[in-house]
Amino acid sequence: MAKEIPTASCEVMDTTSDGKGEPTNLCVFSAPIKAHERIKRTAEYAEDPAGYLQKALGKETFESRRPMLSLPKTVDMDAYGTGEHRQHFEQHIASFLGKQHGLFFVTGIQAQLAALKTYADRAEKPYVAWHTSCHLEWAEARSFETLYGLERLLLGSDPETLPTVDEITTVLGHSNYSRPAAILLEIPNRVLGCQTYTFGELEKISSACREAGVALHMDGARLWEIEPYYQATAGKSFADLTALFDSVYVSFYKGVGGATGAMLVTDDESLIDEAKLWQHRAGGRAFTLGYEVIDDERGFNENIGTFSRKRDKMIEVVDAVTAATAGYKSTDGSKIVNFEPDRPTCCQILTVFDGFTEEQLIDARDRVEAKTNVRIFDRLRPKETVDADEDIQADTNLSGSVNSKRHFKEWMIMSVTEKIETRVFVDAYVDLCKELVGEAS
Amino acid sequence: MAKEIPTASCEVMDTTSDGKGEPTNLCVFSAPIKAHERIKRTAEYAEDPAGYLQKALGKETFESRRPMLSLPKTVDMDAYGTGEHRQHFEQHIASFLGKQHGLFFVTGIQAQLAALKTYADRAEKPYVAWHTSCHLEWAEARSFETLYGLERLLLGSDPETLPTVDEITTVLGHSNYSRPAAILLEIPNRVLGCQTYTFGELEKISSACREAGVALHMDGARLWEIEPYYQATAGKSFADLTALFDSVYVSFYKGVGGATGAMLVTDDESLIDEAKLWQHRAGGRAFTLGYEVIDDERGFNENIGTFSRKRDKMIEVVDAVTAATAGYKSTDGSKIVNFEPDRPTCCQILTVFDGFTEEQLIDARDRVEAKTNVRIFDRLRPKETVDADEDIQADTNLSGSVNSKRHFKEWMIMSVTEKIETRVFVDAYVDLCKELVGEAS
Repeated sequence: MAKEIPTASCEVMDTTSDGKGEPTNLCVFSAPIKAHERIKRTAEYAEDPAGYLQKALGKETFESRRPMLSLPKTVDMDAYGTGEHRQHFEQHIASFLGKQHGLFFVTGIQAQLAALKTYADRAEKPYVAWHTSCHLEWAEARSFETLYGLERLLLGSDPETLPTVDEITTVLGHSNYSRPAAILLEIPNRVLGCQTYTFGELEKISSACREAGVALHMDGARLWEIEPYYQATAGKSFADLTALFDSVYVSFYKGVGGATGAMLVTDDESLIDEAKLWQHRAGGRAFTLGYEVIDDERGFNENIGTFSRKRDKMIEVVDAVTAATAGYKSTDGSKIVNFEPDRPTCCQILTVFDGFTEEQLIDARDRVEAKTNVRIFDRLRPKETVDADEDIQADTNLSGSVNSKRHFKEWMIMSVTEKIETRVFVDAYVDLCKELVGEAS
Repeated sequence: MAKEIPTASCEVMDTTSDGKGEPTNLCVFSAPIKAHERIKRTAEYAEDPAGYLQKALGKETFESRRPMLSLPKTVDMDAYGTGEHRQHFEQHIASFLGKQHGLFFVTGIQAQLAALKTYADRAEKPYVAWHTSCHLEWAEARSFETLYGLERLLLGSDPETLPTVDEITTVLGHSNYSRPAAILLEIPNRVLGCQTYTFGELEKISSACREAGVALHMDGARLWEIEPYYQATAGKSFADLTALFDSVYVSFYKGVGGATGAMLVTDDESLIDEAKLWQHRAGGRAFTLGYEVIDDERGFNENIGTFSRKRDKMIEVVDAVTAATAGYKSTDGSKIVNFEPDRPTCCQILTVFDGFTEEQLIDARDRVEAKTNVRIFDRLRPKETVDADEDIQADTNLSGSVNSKRHFKEWMIMSVTEKIETRVFVDAYVDLCKELVGEAS
């Protein structure tokens, strides 16, 4: 099994630091907050959601975003999945995304496998299809086959590229039995730096799936983050996007900043019923998930409506850093600082450093931090194709990374990093390049 | 699938009522508490566990129970299962129960199936064995076979009786392949009113399992509650009990009163490693379960050390009610009020009402409540054997219950019901009998 890439290579959260004297971290996921403060925040939200949000967002922003917000009449805790607040949140998220029904899950692993297993059972065959970069392929201990008894077909020919529309329609043209019961597309594709399909491509894939009688499921772990891309490039909304899919999974603890949890949304009520059964079987029907449901609603309400702005900021930062570092090259002539993709699709991207070892990069990072109190990255990972990466890990227990001269960091513009001025990013990357090429003062 | 018996037939919790003017409920699970108050309580505990407990328990009780308590140095939230506080809690519970290793789970379903699946994989056969009253048999949507690919052998010959030592050793004597990889015993047996084995019987079963190379797993959902029985009858402790088992699952949201969650404890470190893998596959490796871990520790610390006292109270109540209602009989001559078992083993039991329909019982209950403001039960269930019950449900969608003249309520002495004087229980049951036989004033 491949080692899981953490959700962000950035520090996830610092629950002990008081933040004083800490460096400006360009890659931090969320502001440091102690456990009891996080829980207290959840309690404050639960006591008076609207009041909490007016304070957190400001009255004006609260009013302007009100149509998007999930504002419950009652905040109770569900008992085994049933409760007024939970049903309100499920209904709100489903409607917000343009679907009729929603089911909350403790994890995305459960949500997606419940949907795929149901599609496979209905089709009376075990086949489901996805790209090799798919979360189910490398980050779930191969649950799909070891626990759910599914068999997967891999879409596409290149681990570093989204499967093309043609490659997908080819699989849909398989003879009836070997044609997959469902296709999973990750929108956007996290491993590929949030590359994604155009809306037109998605329309073609969706039509082809419907024609072939194959369910189309969206891994929308970062759907919140990518929707502004579809608004900007095609004038398309959440509802326009989800209309192309039979079911959609979304996550609440990444960009949305909730405690943990996921939701499956669909127009297909019987899919929800069957997914509930698989949720129960997987041990996801807890006595209550009230803490998570409540905190996820808080996170959703605090962050929905911010992703377009965060995307704009990411584009500004990447464009500026690209321009400022264009002249810095490693000994083999390649640019040191690269982004994947070249231009951000959303507020999450990969920075790829070329031509230096991990040790050299960390030394340079630390020297920049010592001089400027700005920290550019926390963790790096060797940049290989997904397959090659898995092989290296399997064969050498990650020691392959020592000699690699391509590394990446995965990072996002979050509420906390959004506040850092673009020139701070630019200066830090330029300083890093200078340290690496020996031009540092 | 059989309809799940709720954890207590009592009202689980009332999150909206303010408790004013409410009747004395002999069957309530916990005091009414609003969602935000529950969360705030968790936050207060997280901020200063020892301070919280000194206040909640009183300084003297806190000091006297200190050796039992899980008092963490740091309260952080785990990230994907790793965190100082979570590891502290896992270690504390494992040690407290006399085992070396612990693994926290969001549900008992995941915890038990992770252990059983591992035993089956090791033995290279799918067979596991339990009594028909087992939670895995009727309350988990048959996850063991539909998801985990296990096949179960049923122990014992009578749905209403614990499998005997002889019946278990017979199964252990099966030829190698058909002998189960593991046996699950529920200590105590919830469906049978918390009947349990004597310590001597458990020793025999344990030896026989070891001799046969069969893993012995404890469903200890109510182990906290039953330990005083073994102390009282055999001078045996948690550690003495768990030493007889290869692995033990315990629950944190029942008698212990935590948010939700479970733990698997064992001396077998590789079982923990394998269980982690199954936990991951089942979607139980959430971004954090910090809210649950923290609140479960609070519940454990507030309730550990109280179960002997609650057992004593239950024995006192049952003995007194039995004596006071002995003369009240239904038209067929059977006693109206019965307990299963006759004498409590612990603070949980079944009250079985004989000779009246559900409607008659509810009418009588409501008349008693109207006169005395004491409520004897909330929900009733028809009392059949487990098998017959399932058949009725499958065939008639529970309509079989309408004509049944045997009903039970499941109830516990919890922190809130412990405070109700025994004579209140006695008077209420006598009043109920009088209403039923037409002697009410």
